[in-house]
Amino acid sequence: MEIPLKEIAKKVGGKIKGEEEIIIKGVAPIKDAVQGEISFIANKKYIPFLKDTKASAVIVSEDVEEAGITLLQTKDPYLAFAKTLSLFAPKHSHPKGISPKSFVSESAHIGKDVSIYPNVYIGERTKVGDRTIIYPGVYIGSDVVIGKDSLIYPNVTIYHGSILGDRVIVHGGVVIGSDGFGFAPTKEGREKIPQIGIVEIGDDVEIGSNTTIDRATMGATKIGKGVKIDNLVQIAHNVVIGENSVIVAQVGIAGSVTVGKNVILAGQVGVAGHIEIGDNVMVGPKSGVAKSIKAGSIVIGSPPIPRTQYIKSALIFAQLPEIKKMVENLSNELEKLKKELKKS
Amino acid sequence: MEIPLKEIAKKVGGKIKGEEEIIIKGVAPIKDAVQGEISFIANKKYIPFLKDTKASAVIVSEDVEEAGITLLQTKDPYLAFAKTLSLFAPKHSHPKGISPKSFVSESAHIGKDVSIYPNVYIGERTKVGDRTIIYPGVYIGSDVVIGKDSLIYPNVTIYHGSILGDRVIVHGGVVIGSDGFGFAPTKEGREKIPQIGIVEIGDDVEIGSNTTIDRATMGATKIGKGVKIDNLVQIAHNVVIGENSVIVAQVGIAGSVTVGKNVILAGQVGVAGHIEIGDNVMVGPKSGVAKSIKAGSIVIGSPPIPRTQYIKSALIFAQLPEIKKMVENLSNELEKLKKELKKS
Amino acid sequence: MEIPLKEIAKKVGGKIKGEEEIIIKGVAPIKDAVQGEISFIANKKYIPFLKDTKASAVIVSEDVEEAGITLLQTKDPYLAFAKTLSLFAPKHSHPKGISPKSFVSESAHIGKDVSIYPNVYIGERTKVGDRTIIYPGVYIGSDVVIGKDSLIYPNVTIYHGSILGDRVIVHGGVVIGSDGFGFAPTKEGREKIPQIGIVEIGDDVEIGSNTTIDRATMGATKIGKGVKIDNLVQIAHNVVIGENSVIVAQVGIAGSVTVGKNVILAGQVGVAGHIEIGDNVMVGPKSGVAKSIKAGSIVIGSPPIPRTQYIKSALIFAQLPEIKKMVENLSNELEKLKKELKKS
Repeated sequence: MEIPLKEIAKKVGGKIKGEEEIIIKGVAPIKDAVQGEISFIANKKYIPFLKDTKASAVIVSEDVEEAGITLLQTKDPYLAFAKTLSLFAPKHSHPKGISPKSFVSESAHIGKDVSIYPNVYIGERTKVGDRTIIYPGVYIGSDVVIGKDSLIYPNVTIYHGSILGDRVIVHGGVVIGSDGFGFAPTKEGREKIPQIGIVEIGDDVEIGSNTTIDRATMGATKIGKGVKIDNLVQIAHNVVIGENSVIVAQVGIAGSVTVGKNVILAGQVGVAGHIEIGDNVMVGPKSGVAKSIKAGSIVIGSPPIPRTQYIKSALIFAQLPEIKKMVENLSNELEKLKKELKKS
Repeated sequence: MEIPLKEIAKKVGGKIKGEEEIIIKGVAPIKDAVQGEISFIANKKYIPFLKDTKASAVIVSEDVEEAGITLLQTKDPYLAFAKTLSLFAPKHSHPKGISPKSFVSESAHIGKDVSIYPNVYIGERTKVGDRTIIYPGVYIGSDVVIGKDSLIYPNVTIYHGSILGDRVIVHGGVVIGSDGFGFAPTKEGREKIPQIGIVEIGDDVEIGSNTTIDRATMGATKIGKGVKIDNLVQIAHNVVIGENSVIVAQVGIAGSVTVGKNVILAGQVGVAGHIEIGDNVMVGPKSGVAKSIKAGSIVIGSPPIPRTQYIKSALIFAQLPEIKKMVENLSNELEKLKKELKKS
Repeated sequence: MEIPLKEIAKKVGGKIKGEEEIIIKGVAPIKDAVQGEISFIANKKYIPFLKDTKASAVIVSEDVEEAGITLLQTKDPYLAFAKTLSLFAPKHSHPKGISPKSFVSESAHIGKDVSIYPNVYIGERTKVGDRTIIYPGVYIGSDVVIGKDSLIYPNVTIYHGSILGDRVIVHGGVVIGSDGFGFAPTKEGREKIPQIGIVEIGDDVEIGSNTTIDRATMGATKIGKGVKIDNLVQIAHNVVIGENSVIVAQVGIAGSVTVGKNVILAGQVGVAGHIEIGDNVMVGPKSGVAKSIKAGSIVIGSPPIPRTQYIKSALIFAQLPEIKKMVENLSNELEKLKKELKKS
């Protein structure tokens, strides 16, 4: 692919500083870029690499003015990089229509220009919006609604009654709408609580590979507009996640938790059931959250505490044996001192 | 759906206190219920909501006597709720027989009234019990046995030789019988230990989405009768889990662990290999279990300690910087005091 | 199956001490073995079991000389056990050729003696090496390369452009090449960073069930030769893992991490983005790794510290309430003492 730098500048809304007539053939990280490629610097700490890069142009922020190399100044270099990358991303073509190797229920309603690959199953009364692509091995139960321009990658399982918005991306192996985990103890064992609710997923949501989202016991498990979920995340029944929140890989959220808007839960965080996490909260990796968290908090740990405090405590953890020793010595010395004073 | 309250009372074994002739149209949580719906209170802390609920009837325990609303008194309101919910759960009908879009080995033995959806694969000599339902995309290897009235949801993978009981529910994307993780180090790398054992799963077991259960190296990985396993759980080779135990989401159990009966492992717990967890043990979320645990223990942490103790220690963790400071100050002051005393 | 002990001795490179003319019918652990079976002792602590085992022969190290039972002495008994087990492992036969129930693109290149089971999808220009076996429900996108003698188990998803070596084993439900998790924040939400890189997997790699390996943003996510990955592991975009490393179940490795050769990451470890883990490092279970680790380190914890130190600190954690109390008492007593001294 060859794209003139001028065209990139126009598409991403930037200003060229240096040679205007360059043709760009690809995008690469600042250290790996070769001649003909464009790179980017979104983090100031990479600025020293500008001197040595072999890139033909570099996307930078507006305050980077001069670097002996052609610059593409933008307000938000990371966003400009994202847009540039999409110019170079290969466009995959998909066979339009329904593969004869798939099964689509007669009562299903399939939109215009939909691609349904082989080995797909689509249940009764299910609706698939225009231009949505359904890869091989996908199962979609009955009474499901999937919006327009969505991408359902291979081997995804979507149980009956689930509702997905427009431009939703669901990666390989995801399971949406499986039964919530609920049992009433009996004398003989455990009686299954039937899970008769559904899952609702808003527009522009992306869900990573092998993530699982359980249906509600009653009502709906809800993933808000623009939420991004990474791989191998567990979202239990009746969880509600607010708009534009980010859930990183291997997070587990227990039943009936409410997560606010613009929240970030870092990797491997666990959230106990029935609590609330306020808007704009950031929870650091591996934290165990057992109580509600106020909006705007930036915390980490089990229980989560402010980040700077956590780092101090975590470092002292390694010194616990010495601290204990010190305390015991102090105790002995004080005792000795007291005895001596008594004598005198 | 419309069910007379009287009929619900009969089915769940309860006593109506209030209007007997009500028709119930659905079930909902106490805060969300509208007129015509039945709700429930299994936890005393929700009793205050009785005043304001719009439900037409509420399932309660026998000691709740009066609430200005029709009550359905029961011995175990949570169990009664479970039973009521199953009255209202939609009954899915399944196409009986084998879809021509599936592959079933000629030597397989398929029971009566089995439903085999499209895109299923069933290997040689495999037996599927009466009325069992096998959803699209399921792979069942050779020499597998699946009991009666079981539900195998889409895209499940069951390796050769696995044995599943009656009324087993396996949710989407589960993998049963993949190779245990064992390698003998060699000069050049690692030699695979062949995994020639199997997986045995008892009656009434439920397994959550994308959970993985490895086959034994030799012998069998065993999941006891009535065990309930949540999503994304890892169960390694030669693990044995006793009857009616509950394994919550994202738990990992390493090789050759023995888990007793009625054990509860909360979310994200990790258990190291070759240890024993006694009957009725409860391990709190995110715990790391490296040593055997005696029957009846209620523990949490890494290593797990009694719950009340853990909570205290976890709160003090945040105070470690101040405690360290205090100890250092004490040490200095004591030193000063000793010097002063020496002088005098 | 019946194999003379002499033949086993020849195949594994060992010396028989005792009865030479035994016929072996199976392999079993030392405690479970019955007459006619061979067992092994790779760990000295199991030597006492030699007295009571019912095995007809036992694989031992060369320094075990006499045990009142036929011994098979070898340099490396664990490796010899692995080799013996593979003599007894059932050989599965696979239907050669392409199932008519599968879809293979006309431009795909399928090697000799390949087995492609039903319900498989293979995309354009994809190459599958000789004797590779592709189980039901597998999706392989376009422009993928899979080497010789590989095993792709059911319901695996391999996205376009992925490259897999020879003798690679991919267990059920694995997803290779899904999009890395990258978004640029905007005023309205988050803009997806297109993921245009690939995944490269070396020879002799084994990947456990439902593990996910994301494609690189640019360039490649690389899994080195001989790496063994357990179940439910998350490997993010642009991660590089060196040869013969071992990644245990439920580990999560964030974006752009470099892991050296022969590294062992134990179960449920989390590794933060953009750091380096040196060769031969061992990280204990559940550790949270936020900073680079020097080659050869054996560490555990969050942050990881040397193992012996960690164990001491973890035990003192439970004593924190008493230690805090002690420090407070000391402080009070010292204060009292100082006051008394002032008076006198």
